Amino acid sequence: MKPRIVLALGGNALQKNGEATAEAQKKVAESVGEVIADLASNYEIVIAHGNGPQVGNILIHEEQAATSKAPAMPLETAVAMSQGQIGYWLTQAIHNAFAKKNQRKKIATVISQVVVDKEDPAFKNPTKPIGQFYSEKEAKILTKEKGWVVKEDAGRGWRRVVASPKPIDIVEKQTITDLLKEGVIVVAAGGGGIPVTRTKLLKRLKGIDAVIDKDYAAEKLAELVKANIFVSVTAVPNVYINYGLENQQKLGHLTVKDAKHLKKYGYFKAGSMLPKVEAATKFAETGGTGIITDIDHLKDALKGKAGTIIAK
Amino acid sequence: MKPRIVLALGGNALQKNGEATAEAQKKVAESVGEVIADLASNYEIVIAHGNGPQVGNILIHEEQAATSKAPAMPLETAVAMSQGQIGYWLTQAIHNAFAKKNQRKKIATVISQVVVDKEDPAFKNPTKPIGQFYSEKEAKILTKEKGWVVKEDAGRGWRRVVASPKPIDIVEKQTITDLLKEGVIVVAAGGGGIPVTRTKLLKRLKGIDAVIDKDYAAEKLAELVKANIFVSVTAVPNVYINYGLENQQKLGHLTVKDAKHLKKYGYFKAGSMLPKVEAATKFAETGGTGIITDIDHLKDALKGKAGTIIAK
Repeated sequence: MKPRIVLALGGNALQKNGEATAEAQKKVAESVGEVIADLASNYEIVIAHGNGPQVGNILIHEEQAATSKAPAMPLETAVAMSQGQIGYWLTQAIHNAFAKKNQRKKIATVISQVVVDKEDPAFKNPTKPIGQFYSEKEAKILTKEKGWVVKEDAGRGWRRVVASPKPIDIVEKQTITDLLKEGVIVVAAGGGGIPVTRTKLLKRLKGIDAVIDKDYAAEKLAELVKANIFVSVTAVPNVYINYGLENQQKLGHLTVKDAKHLKKYGYFKAGSMLPKVEAATKFAETGGTGIITDIDHLKDALKGKAGTIIAK
Repeated sequence: MKPRIVLALGGNALQKNGEATAEAQKKVAESVGEVIADLASNYEIVIAHGNGPQVGNILIHEEQAATSKAPAMPLETAVAMSQGQIGYWLTQAIHNAFAKKNQRKKIATVISQVVVDKEDPAFKNPTKPIGQFYSEKEAKILTKEKGWVVKEDAGRGWRRVVASPKPIDIVEKQTITDLLKEGVIVVAAGGGGIPVTRTKLLKRLKGIDAVIDKDYAAEKLAELVKANIFVSVTAVPNVYINYGLENQQKLGHLTVKDAKHLKKYGYFKAGSMLPKVEAATKFAETGGTGIITDIDHLKDALKGKAGTIIAK
């Protein structure tokens, strides 16, 4: 049996220099495809991509051009749209990377719902700005009409903010596992997943507007599909502490204890390395290997020769 | 082994009275979910939904609110977005229909690429209007800048028209089959599929802006996954000839020969029953059963007691 990897791939990574056309993003996806096709002979692979800039643009388009006949889709549905969009690009890019080698491989994007807890404290304090900027007046109307929480954003205008609750389950986990067993490379839990709540008794699902961190969702998926390795693929080859300072230090192999110690002393920043280190540490605690590196060092990191690698 | 059905479900069907909010469409999806959950004990099921009004709205939003930082997605990517959107709604609705009965079932939406032939004559004569209306001047600029074919649309303005080529293969066919074997209800080939061309030698895929008829795509899928039954689920319980006239006649059981005969004499209209009858007939020719009916008569039609049923 091949070891099973879950890769958390940043949504920003697809927009080189901020280029957001489909054409430009597909081009970046091609290089990701090459790496995946290269790894596939040695690993079973799940790709859980982010969707920050993509879902942002979808929401801007949906909100700005909404009419009564063509109303704007809510955030939770916009996440589903971004899963289709990015999943398609990645699926095709991976297919073509195999095709280049005259090989065939099954690849599938599975639209994924990620369960969050309605009582998650995050819902009491929404912090994630999403969608377009509004004037104060417009923002107040939206609060009244749609129940949105809006906040002034650093002098640039008013924006909706939503909660970022923790993922507690992934609805499609068994299907994703089935596909891996059948030798399929799976793209899943895109954008941290479509956030849904689940009723206690009957387990009915309901979409909820929120943003689930893609590293936490990917780590949860890695646990649920019993992966051996979780990798947060980011823009830098390693995690550093005191980055840019004289005493800057590159982190290589870390124990869970080391990682927790550094976290406790505030070495990792929220909105930057903190969720990645937390996710990798959490996965390492379950007995797997948690890695943080960039796409260029991924192969070496999997051999233990690059990246920040956290294990028990 | 349970018989395997592919259901082609109209995208219009999700917008009752033209209500296009996510909330309204999810509500309609719920009733579809109930029907699917009811059939699942006796059949393996694939749902291949349409996306006409949904992708139309996505394109309108993408085009109207496009900026250089948030550029509009092309049609092929918009189809992928609509697959995520509608697939999510259907998946959740089916899940909840099972939940209501305190049952669990695996359900998955697979983003699907459908291969078309670059040399398909449809590309020489694009006929499908898509997206928003433009002025003549804007339309001419778009032709120049993006290579779009634009046509004047019944005095309402100018619109882009795209080709509607025939589906020749479905990239994810084996994955979809794998899932069916694992007992998963699959949503696939949404909106007729993301249109892609495939190079002869290396089989590289490339998206192309086109609209594949969802009945043709669903029928192709039914052949490829070796389904027993193909159903085009539409707004009426049966196909009629001379509809609304004195000699109106409801069509029940038909042989392939009957269906072809009626088609030859022009009894079925393009853009209405023609593609459905053609798809059902084509499927019947391969040895399966092709059905055309509405969602309320689906169960009876599967027992041979309702709908228009075409067989060899």
